[in-house]
This record gives sequence, C-alpha cells and structure tokens, in this order.
Amino acid sequence: MAASLLIPLCLCILLLRGASAVSDQQEAGRRDSCDRIDRRIRALEPTRRVDSEAGHTELYDDRDGQLPCAGVAAARITIQRNGLLLPSYSNSPRLAYIVHGRGIVGVVIPGCPETYQETSSSSSQEQEDDERRRRGRRGDEERRRSSEGEEEEEEEETSRRSFEQSIRDEHQRITTVRQGDVVAIPAGAPFWVHNDGDSPLVAISVHDVSNSANQLDQTSRRFRLAGGQARSEGRQRYGEGESSESETERGGEESYNILSGFDTELLAESMRVSPDIARKLQGRSDKRGNIVRVRRGGLRMLRPATERVTDEEMMRGANAAAAAGNGIDEAVCLMKLRENVADPMKADLYTPNGGRITVLNSQKLPVLKLIKMSVNRGVMRRNAILAPHWNINAHAAVYATSGSARLQVVSSEGRRVFDGELRRGQMVVVPQSFAVAGRAGDEGFAWVSFQTSDGAMNAPVVGKSSALRGMPADVLANAFGVSREEARMVKFGRGQELAIFSPKSGAAARRRRSPGHRDDGVLAAPA
Amino acid sequence: MAASLLIPLCLCILLLRGASAVSDQQEAGRRDSCDRIDRRIRALEPTRRVDSEAGHTELYDDRDGQLPCAGVAAARITIQRNGLLLPSYSNSPRLAYIVHGRGIVGVVIPGCPETYQETSSSSSQEQEDDERRRRGRRGDEERRRSSEGEEEEEEEETSRRSFEQSIRDEHQRITTVRQGDVVAIPAGAPFWVHNDGDSPLVAISVHDVSNSANQLDQTSRRFRLAGGQARSEGRQRYGEGESSESETERGGEESYNILSGFDTELLAESMRVSPDIARKLQGRSDKRGNIVRVRRGGLRMLRPATERVTDEEMMRGANAAAAAGNGIDEAVCLMKLRENVADPMKADLYTPNGGRITVLNSQKLPVLKLIKMSVNRGVMRRNAILAPHWNINAHAAVYATSGSARLQVVSSEGRRVFDGELRRGQMVVVPQSFAVAGRAGDEGFAWVSFQTSDGAMNAPVVGKSSALRGMPADVLANAFGVSREEARMVKFGRGQELAIFSPKSGAAARRRRSPGHRDDGVLAAPA
Amino acid sequence: MAASLLIPLCLCILLLRGASAVSDQQEAGRRDSCDRIDRRIRALEPTRRVDSEAGHTELYDDRDGQLPCAGVAAARITIQRNGLLLPSYSNSPRLAYIVHGRGIVGVVIPGCPETYQETSSSSSQEQEDDERRRRGRRGDEERRRSSEGEEEEEEEETSRRSFEQSIRDEHQRITTVRQGDVVAIPAGAPFWVHNDGDSPLVAISVHDVSNSANQLDQTSRRFRLAGGQARSEGRQRYGEGESSESETERGGEESYNILSGFDTELLAESMRVSPDIARKLQGRSDKRGNIVRVRRGGLRMLRPATERVTDEEMMRGANAAAAAGNGIDEAVCLMKLRENVADPMKADLYTPNGGRITVLNSQKLPVLKLIKMSVNRGVMRRNAILAPHWNINAHAAVYATSGSARLQVVSSEGRRVFDGELRRGQMVVVPQSFAVAGRAGDEGFAWVSFQTSDGAMNAPVVGKSSALRGMPADVLANAFGVSREEARMVKFGRGQELAIFSPKSGAAARRRRSPGHRDDGVLAAPA
Repeated sequence: MAASLLIPLCLCILLLRGASAVSDQQEAGRRDSCDRIDRRIRALEPTRRVDSEAGHTELYDDRDGQLPCAGVAAARITIQRNGLLLPSYSNSPRLAYIVHGRGIVGVVIPGCPETYQETSSSSSQEQEDDERRRRGRRGDEERRRSSEGEEEEEEEETSRRSFEQSIRDEHQRITTVRQGDVVAIPAGAPFWVHNDGDSPLVAISVHDVSNSANQLDQTSRRFRLAGGQARSEGRQRYGEGESSESETERGGEESYNILSGFDTELLAESMRVSPDIARKLQGRSDKRGNIVRVRRGGLRMLRPATERVTDEEMMRGANAAAAAGNGIDEAVCLMKLRENVADPMKADLYTPNGGRITVLNSQKLPVLKLIKMSVNRGVMRRNAILAPHWNINAHAAVYATSGSARLQVVSSEGRRVFDGELRRGQMVVVPQSFAVAGRAGDEGFAWVSFQTSDGAMNAPVVGKSSALRGMPADVLANAFGVSREEARMVKFGRGQELAIFSPKSGAAARRRRSPGHRDDGVLAAPA
Repeated sequence: MAASLLIPLCLCILLLRGASAVSDQQEAGRRDSCDRIDRRIRALEPTRRVDSEAGHTELYDDRDGQLPCAGVAAARITIQRNGLLLPSYSNSPRLAYIVHGRGIVGVVIPGCPETYQETSSSSSQEQEDDERRRRGRRGDEERRRSSEGEEEEEEEETSRRSFEQSIRDEHQRITTVRQGDVVAIPAGAPFWVHNDGDSPLVAISVHDVSNSANQLDQTSRRFRLAGGQARSEGRQRYGEGESSESETERGGEESYNILSGFDTELLAESMRVSPDIARKLQGRSDKRGNIVRVRRGGLRMLRPATERVTDEEMMRGANAAAAAGNGIDEAVCLMKLRENVADPMKADLYTPNGGRITVLNSQKLPVLKLIKMSVNRGVMRRNAILAPHWNINAHAAVYATSGSARLQVVSSEGRRVFDGELRRGQMVVVPQSFAVAGRAGDEGFAWVSFQTSDGAMNAPVVGKSSALRGMPADVLANAFGVSREEARMVKFGRGQELAIFSPKSGAAARRRRSPGHRDDGVLAAPA
Repeated sequence: MAASLLIPLCLCILLLRGASAVSDQQEAGRRDSCDRIDRRIRALEPTRRVDSEAGHTELYDDRDGQLPCAGVAAARITIQRNGLLLPSYSNSPRLAYIVHGRGIVGVVIPGCPETYQETSSSSSQEQEDDERRRRGRRGDEERRRSSEGEEEEEEEETSRRSFEQSIRDEHQRITTVRQGDVVAIPAGAPFWVHNDGDSPLVAISVHDVSNSANQLDQTSRRFRLAGGQARSEGRQRYGEGESSESETERGGEESYNILSGFDTELLAESMRVSPDIARKLQGRSDKRGNIVRVRRGGLRMLRPATERVTDEEMMRGANAAAAAGNGIDEAVCLMKLRENVADPMKADLYTPNGGRITVLNSQKLPVLKLIKMSVNRGVMRRNAILAPHWNINAHAAVYATSGSARLQVVSSEGRRVFDGELRRGQMVVVPQSFAVAGRAGDEGFAWVSFQTSDGAMNAPVVGKSSALRGMPADVLANAFGVSREEARMVKFGRGQELAIFSPKSGAAARRRRSPGHRDDGVLAAPA
C-alpha cells in the first residue's frame, strides 16, 4: 500500500540497476504444466530418428511431460566421418556435449568480423606464413584427391586459383571439438558442424526452450539455412497436454530451409547471383537431408596450423583482426564457446572411492551467462552413492554417457516419481526442488547434466554443508523423533564427504573393481 | 527491420551487460501460442475506431494471432488541432512514433518533483524572465480570445490573477514532440498529449504487453484518470484463441475513469474538495470521449521560452530544480523520453542508392533500458531491396509510414507465412527468428519498426557481416551443392552493402525516380 | 546433479549479481488469467485449516482468483508454546510477518558453513565463556525439568555429556524473531521455526509462486524434510479456472516427507545410519503433523548469550567462522534475513493525525533483491484516509493485523471490484495498476502488505508528488471540465500530505480518539 515518500529511493534503485545491468539467471516463464511429473516420470530413450546422407538425429520425445516441464528439448546427433551438419539456428540457446569423436564447429555470431581471412593486399610475414601453411595443406589435399577424380578437380582448381589471386576467402572463427567438450550456441546464432575425424561424431544437445532469450512460444524451432526437404524436426512443440504422438502425426508436414521460402527472383537479386544458383540455395530438390557428405577434396577452410590452438593464441589472433577491422566490440565476438569437462584433473569435487564431478558454469565459461544454462559432468565408481540432494534454482536433464545407475527422484508429496536404472544413452529430468539420490551400477556411472541456470546450485540433504548438518541436532531429534545421539549420527555420519559418497565397504569395493570398465580413462585406475 | 551496421553497437551493449550482469533485454513470458503465425499472417489494418470530441483512436485487432504472439498491442491515435488526449496509464510500457503533426506530451513519473514551477516567493532574474515570457504569450492568447467570447473570459482571468499572486502552478516536465519523434512511456506512468499545432497530430503506438514490467495477465489495460464513459478501449485482451469479434461483443460493456470507481464522498475528502467537484472528476456524465477539445483560451502551462528547447537546457533547468527540491533521485526523473529518428543526418546505416535506417535503442535513449523496447526507422528508395535477415532477440511490429513494399516472411519450416504489400498505415509482425526480405514499391517505402527488446539485434543472411559470409566458402559449397566459385559469389556478391541493398540497375532507377514521392523530405532528393 | 562443493562459488556469483545489478523487480511470467479480478474480488479469510500436534496452518484459498492473479499463495501459521515447525523448503521464496509472539527461526542456506559450532579442540577464552553461558542456561533448564520427569532426563543427560566431550554440535546461524519482524526465506532453502516464548507464535506468510526463482509451474509446492503423513498442504495448485474445491477433493491424497520417497536401504547407506533410524527419518508412522511439540528438556541449540544479538555481533562472529572455514563466500551466507518493521521510530512516512508507513525493500534488507519481494507496514489512526494510489510495478497482498478499514479497489474500467471492510485476519489483493483508497475504521487500521517486487513503487493520485500534481492545472481543468481555480484546488488541496491523509476534522478526531485501541503501542498515544 501507499508509501510514496519512498518512491525516490525506489527510483534510485531502479536507476542504478538500469545503469549498470539487470537481471538474470532466473528465468521466469516456465509455465507449462508440471502436473504429470508429480505422478511419474521414466528414463527417456530417443523415440524418433531422422536419417540423413551422412548421419542421423535422434529426438527425445516426451510422453510423460518431463522435458516440457523443464522447458527443454533434447536430441542426439550422429555425424558420420566426413559429414557436415548443415547450418541452422534456433529460437532458443543450446548446449551440446561431445559424447564421442572429434570435429569442427562454426558458430556465426551475427555482426562479428570475419577474423579468419586472406586478402591479397596483405603482405606481412604472418600472411606469408599462412600462405605457406595453406600450400602445405593443399599439397596434402591434392595428393589425396589424385586417387579420386581428376577431371572435375582440374576445373575447380582453376577457379580457385583465380579467386585466390583476387578476393580469397574469409570467415568467422571456427572451433575444434573432441570428446568431453561442451559447446554453447546462443539463440539466433547459426552454426554448422563438420566431422573431420576418423570415427562418428556423437553429440547430445539440449535446448532451453523456456529460456528468456526465446520470445516465441514453448516450441523449439529450428531454422535451417541450407538443405532440402525435412520432416518435423524443424519444430518441436510443447502444447497443453499435447502428446508427442499427435505431434508426430502433424510432423508429416514438410519442412524446407528458410531460403526456400523467399521468391527465387528476390533471393537472386538480394545475393546478386543468377536465379539458377538461388534455386540451388533453396534446395527444394536436395534429398541429402540435414547431414551431408562432404565432397571429394574435403572441407577446405582457414585454420591455424596446430590442430588444437591454445585459447590464448585464438584470442590474440582474433583480437588483432578485430582491432584492425571495423571497430566491432570484441568481447562478445571473442567469447569462448567451448570447454572441456572430461579432464579428471579439472574435477571440482572428488571423493576418493566415490568419483568426481566437474562443474561448468558462467564463472568458468562466461558465455553461459548469456545462455543461462550450465553443465555438470560426473563420474562415479561402481556402487558409489549419489548423495540425496535437490536442485535449488534449476532443472537438470541428466544424460548417461556410460555405465548405469539406479536413481530415485522424489516429489513434494514424498512420492517416488522415478525409480529405475538410467543406462547409457538414456535421459531423465530432475525437476527443480525435487529430491534425487542413487547408486552407480556394477560398471560405474558417468553422466552429463544440463541445467537451466548459469549458476545452478544444489542442496545436499546429508554430508558436508548439507541441509541436515545446518540444523541443530536437537531440531533433528525432535523433528524425526530420534534421540539426540541418533540425530548426531544422522548429521555427522558422512563426515566430510560431499555429493558422491563412497560405497559401503570402500576397501572391498576397491578390490572387486572391474578392470574392464573405462570412461575417459578415468573410472578405472590401473589395476 | 534490418540494421546490421548497428549490430556491433548492440553486441557491445550485450557484452557490457554480459560482463557485469545480464539479461534483460530478453523477456521471458511471451507464452501465448504462436501456433497460428506458423501458418499465415497478413498485413493488419486498424479494425476498430473509437471517436471522441477532438480525435479518434484506431485499434489494430488481431485475427491471425500475430500481435498476441509478439505480445504487443497497437493503436493509431489522431488528435485534432487543439485537442487533448486525456491522462491515462497502462500496465505495460509503450513507445509511440509521431507520424504527423506536433504537440506537447506530459509524462508524469510518480515520485519525481514538479520541476516546472512558479512560486511567488522566488524573485530571481530567471523568474522575472519567465514572467515576462509568460506575459508575452498571454498577450497572444488574449488577442486570440478576443475574437471568441468575452464574458466568460473575464471571470477566468480574475481568478487566474488571484492565483498567480498566491500559489501559482507547478508541474512536471513537459515534452514537445513533432513528426519523426519517438516517445517512451513507462508502465504505470500517466501521460497526456495536447495538439498545439495547426494540423492533426497522428501517432502510432505500440504496447509491449508481454513486457516483464507487466505482472498482470496478457491483457492490455488502460487506466484513465479523467474523462467519461468509453467503450472497450480500456481493455484489450489476448485470450486463448479468443477472437477479437468476441472481444468486441464483450466490449459493449461501459468503461469509466478510475476516479469514478471510488465513492464520491471518499474521493472528495481525499482531495479536500467539495463533492460537486469530485463528481465532476468522476465524469460520469462526460460525453466528450477520450480526446477532448481544449476550451477557448488554449492550454496554459509553464514552458521554456523557445519552442524546441535543447536537451542540455532542459537538463540544466530540471537539474537545478531537483537539486533544490526534495533530494529526489535525479536520474530517473531527468531521463529523456523523446528522440527524433527522422533526421537523415542521424541515420546509422546508409546505402547510396538503397536508403537508410536509424536505430533507437537503449544506448541512445537510456529510458529504453527500463522499457525494454527499441525502434528502427527506415526509408528505402524505389525498388531497393530489404536484405534477407532475421531478428535474433526480439519481435518487430513494422508500421508503414509512407509508400509500400512487398515483404516476405518465412517460418522455421520454410513456409512463406506472409507474402504481400505492406502499404502506408498497415502493420505486420516479423516474429523473432523468422526470416524476412522485401522490395520497396514504386513510391519507395518508409517504415517504423517497434521491437520487443531494448537492444534488438538482426542477423543478415547475405551482405556485410552476414551469416553466410561468416562461414567458409567450402561449407556453403557443400551445404548448397554448388561449386566453390558459386559459393564465393553468394558470399561476396553484395560487397559491403548492409541491410538495404540498391536495386538491380542503380543508375536506371535513379533516372526513373518518381519526383512526386516525399517522406520527411528525404526519399525524394530534388529532381 | 550434485556438486555442492561448487555452491560457494555459485553463491558468490549470485551475490555479486545481487550487489551490482540484477533485475528483478520485474518478474515476467505471471500468466494466470486475471480475468476474474476485473469483475469482483472479496476480503479473503483462511478457508482450510490443517491441525498438528502443537499448532495449525490456515490456508487462504482463492475462490475469486485474486491470489493466482497476483501469483502468490498465503497462509497463517500458529505455533503453540514449545512447538516446532518442521523443516521444509519450497520452490518459491516467501516472506513471513510475525503477527504475534516470539521464536527462533533457522534458515539453512545450502553450501554455507555451520558458523555456530563447538569443537573440543578449541580452547580459547571465548570457548570457555560459551561453556559457562551454556552451563548457566542448562541450570535453568534442569530446574524447569525437575518439575516434569526425572528418570528419562537422567539418561539423556548422560549421553549429552559424552557427546560434549567428543564431537559436540554445530549448525548454521539461527535468528530470533518477535512480533513485527519480517523474515525472508529464499526458494529452495529449508527452514524451521521454534516457539520458545510464552504465548502462541502467529505468522502470516506469503509465497511468491510467480517469482522467477520458481522454474516449476504455478503450483506452490512444499518439500518437507521431516514429519509424517500430511494432507494437501504440500501442494497448492493454480490451474486454469480450477477452483479450490476441486483442489480440496484432490487434496485427499496423502503427502509424506521427501526422505520417505527414497528406498530405506539407500537412505540408510547415504547417511551411514541403521535402517531403523532411516525408517524413523522417513516418518511414515509419525502422526504429529507438521508442527510438533518439543520433548521435555526443550530445544537445546548453540546461541549467543544475549537474547537479541546485535547485527554487528552476529556478522563478526559468522565472519570469523567463515574466514577460518572452507573459504566459502561470505556475502550470501551472512545476509540478514530478518528486519523489524513495527518500530514507530523507523517509520518512513508519517502524517501527524493520519498514521505511518514503514517500507522494507531491498535497500534496507538486501536479501530481498534475491527474493524479489518487499513489505510495507502501515498503521492508521481512526478515520484516517488511505490516499488513492496505484501500485506501479507489483501486486500487493494486504493483510490486516488489527482494526479495520473500508477499502475500495478500482479496475481499468472504473469498476469498483472491491468495496468493503478489511478486518483483522483478512487479506485482499490490490493488483498492479489497480487504484485503491480507503478509510480506517473506528479502531484504526494496521496492516502489512506483501509486494511482488523488491522495489515496489506507488503512484499517488493526489497529494504530494502525485499524478495530478504533476500535470499543469489547465490540463486538469480541460480534462475534468472544471475551472482553473477548481483544478488548482484538486492539485493542492492536500498540501504536503502523502499516502496517509488526516481525517476531515483533525482536531475533532483527536478529541474523539478511542483510548482503548492499541497496536504495537503506537496507534493510541497516551490520552
């Protein structure tokens, strides 16, 4: 009620806020009903598969409403060797975890300079070095090609040479990725992925559809910049009670790339190309799908000499280019989009006979502040216990990368809404505030958890810094109807253990450890 | 619409925010279904007109769901010469663009001091200057009046004199506006508008109903502080699938000003006025509507001598008053609420034979950070091309102020959801992430675009700093199935052009330019 | 999933944000239909009562939709002498106002150190002082107990002594509360309350379910960490048009504490306790309800000697402990969660014959920036007038703590949606933007208002710094159709009065003042 005297003060706050910054990590608006998750959820497997020329996408549907309640959509993408995931963007941000393989990701941040460039006017030593490196690589390419097809190559080579003497190519930074990397892709930013490794590249990808960056409805929409006709993958809708079945039926509709939606003449004139080329861009007759095979000769692009550049190098290079360029702001353009969470030495939490957890939040990868998501990577030894806890300010979509665990998720009514195995390749949502606990299976358990806040926090029930330890023993004694001594046992039973608890008989478990299990070479220490 | 040159600036803001805090400009909570816009949208015309004594309001209804999807409501307001739009406030912020005419806007920021004041105790030189100026103006007024009615005037003049010798008036800052100005009105702040010009004042106004400042539901509510009975304009609701027809039916209900809702006795005592006056304030018998004719004598108010004060002057004056006043925070109270976007010299982006775009975001007008909206003003020459692009983090409600354009809007499924002319006076929504492109008609095209973010960003598909230019040519070649040389043509065809592309034959177009078309005197250079 | 070690870091981010910026006070996402409040609302009484062993909870249901529209849930909790409200947490933040009595609140901020601790290794002077103090208190306890039961006591005393010689207890900071205090409880943070006073402890508590901290749906969920079977209180859902009746029916379902949802074996191993103890924690056979009676001997806990420690002391102590501890971020862990709003000397606004208002926002209590709520406490003399005003950026849930007032709430259509008495114990919502005014009854009126923004702002219609005073007199004259002199009377009638206006005849009212009425000893000055 009325307190107008205070208004000046309030306005002052408002102003200070307005001036420096503003609001974040909480995203309002997750308004889909979470009614069903109060009953029962289950371990999700991908239920729909979209095949392409050089790979496939598997979509995690939701029959029990857990993904819509968390406001996320999930997919597993497999890109075959030498495959290219065609460029697209989405109305919501996404994080992807590389489950297997290696590749190159190009995320185009609109408005940022093309910092990888070759101009014929430049003649510095660096330029010459670049030139030399590129020639070396081209030599390799030509050797490879010579075993494939000569005629076509000849023609292309000619045109390429003439280009190189005039404009040459330029593009935005590219990022190499490998198993254990997390890649952040902001809403509205187009990206492409190329598998330049020797085995399939597999990534699990989670969209935060309820993210405040999305001003459209709760539908995950994919806007493809290239490629031909596709099925329903272009849109995944979360309606009120709308089951995925009905969606699949509707998914029979055809979807095309966005260029195909424009009048060919208009597109051609926009690009100053012939209508024939414009028609090719529209790709209405393209049958390769969303992941295509790169043509003979491989994917040529500008990239630093070393396969895995240090971040410092990348920053320096881009920095110089940006500074010399159009005066664009460097900070967003230079934001790191990738971080590895598999290195055991970088674990944030380690329990000797239990396992480890690596957290990736906006403190470590600042772009997550923009994306408002974070990731945990966990590895547990055989029979280790995932301590009972709840997520304070985020939902978690947990994907099992190897092994298995028996997990239990408990609702506000004390109902066990999930009680089962989460096996490699499955996913389950642990909703905000819901309690979860579990035990790793005989092969251990490794997972990656995608969280809908860039500073996701957990509250452990027991162990170090836990809820129960924060209360006086007498409160517990009276609350639980146990003796004071028993209350103290409950409080201090786990000593200094945190998040992952060692199994009952640590020594015994160590002896029985199955030497066959490996995850990133960490789970199984040399026997 | 497109303004990619500004993207660096926008990104810069983004970064600054990202660094310290974050997110704002994304507003969660646009939860109305956008289902229908995935099918088809159309150019909107105002469908309902509310007539008043001295003007009328035209409301843009939504039959196809595009306005609710974008979470906005739009109206065109026409105030006749000497008309006064009665004070009201809303549960959501709004931006208005002055399409035609000039006037005075008073936005009352609750809690801010009345910085325009005359107190009889003051006797400084400034005060005397004011006095002299006012006398001069009054002389004018009296000359005008003398041709109208003498008796009534006599009485009023007497009472006015007695007032001037005792309390005198005081009020908050007022703002003069003219064609090409954008005015920002925060949620909950009452405002009034007076047309003191010689021709009708026409404004197009867009409410951001989904704005986080609105904690009520998705209904745009107008709370009138004065005036009599009105029809449904007081509330515009976006229900689930609720068509505007049903709204109109329900709109048969009467709406009154908020003072009329209080008990007359309570109101009278609150204000220490007689019940008779209180009854007048409640206006139940007032039939003039929402825009009234100012009585003979004109609208007298305190204002600086020059018609168009410089911002510096205004700041200085208000500053001094605030400092001398009740110690209120100055920053919000002094925030500029108006900015002109029509001056061609202030354009942020200019393509010689194409046109220009002026961006107004929170970098230029800080109050937009509070309001979380921004505006683009664009002017295109005959046949110029609006480059294909998408809005990264906002919806855009595009209003055509003159000329016409053929626009195409494309959904995530590659479906052309809009393909038609947007003519003067029409509006269309370009939803976030949807692709848009177009071509100006024979008379050119001028528009103003209201965006639901204070740092709205565009991503051009082609041209400078575009999505396709950010990718390696080989990625495009493989994605589109074209040769490397063709990929380079696609990438570099438009050279350094950005957002607005010159038409096919620039020289020819220049010669054929229709000399009759004018928009702010800019589109048509002297032939 | 679990990574509590990181919590300190996360909290740190959270804090830094809170400190520099944030944004808050706008919370998007209040998407429940507010349709019904445009028709009529009424004064709410608690409609459902849940009885427990040592107290009861009364829930304010919503039959007219006002609470769901405001996105809040309200309850009144009564804890009998020596009762303990069992620990629980919620998916949304809450503010509670202590209407009567005194007690101890323990809010556990996950990840924060247990700053109240006794370790047998410590031997400082402070430690000895503590020891002495505790012995003194124990002496008191024993004297009290001697009148109750001897045998059981003997045994407990023994076990306690042995404990004291070995581990001793430790827990997080506890907070004493008394009538007039506001306590802030963040989302996800477990808390418990103990009544250690001589009379019932009564608190009115408001959850902000629409708060951006809640990523679940609009259901207020309570997650209990202890206690047995309960009825529907664990979940209060706001569905579309779902009436509270249907909820009550569904509420027949049983609800248990979250530990009961885990497998007993898993729980036991997690805590390293026997399955028997684990079963007790699960409390399936516990019939005491949610508020239990503390067993003979009282609730022993560590606390500073003086009953009401100064904030400085508390900070110093906690600070030292934190610094010596695990390097956790201190700022969040040390945030003050309680503030008194009853002290008349701390009033922010005072009208001599009218009353006073005390505002508690994030400027005064920084944790409110996290919680995005604020509180006003108001006290009005007999017949004083609550000035007409509206809430700019928040809803207000107004609870009458004593006396009564006739209030009128007016919608955008000028409809009086509420017109009635608000009596002690009743609650009414004043929605954002809706106008409200009123008059205190014969016994005066005291209230506490919970607002859904941490920087809630009001706009008065008349009086100092009001909407009408901010407009030129001539605008009002023309808008209302009154003379200029009348417009000036409207503008200046209330002089410098603000928010609370003195009644018609101040002197008369003073004489007639009923000496019998008291509220916090302030309303009635010594007659």
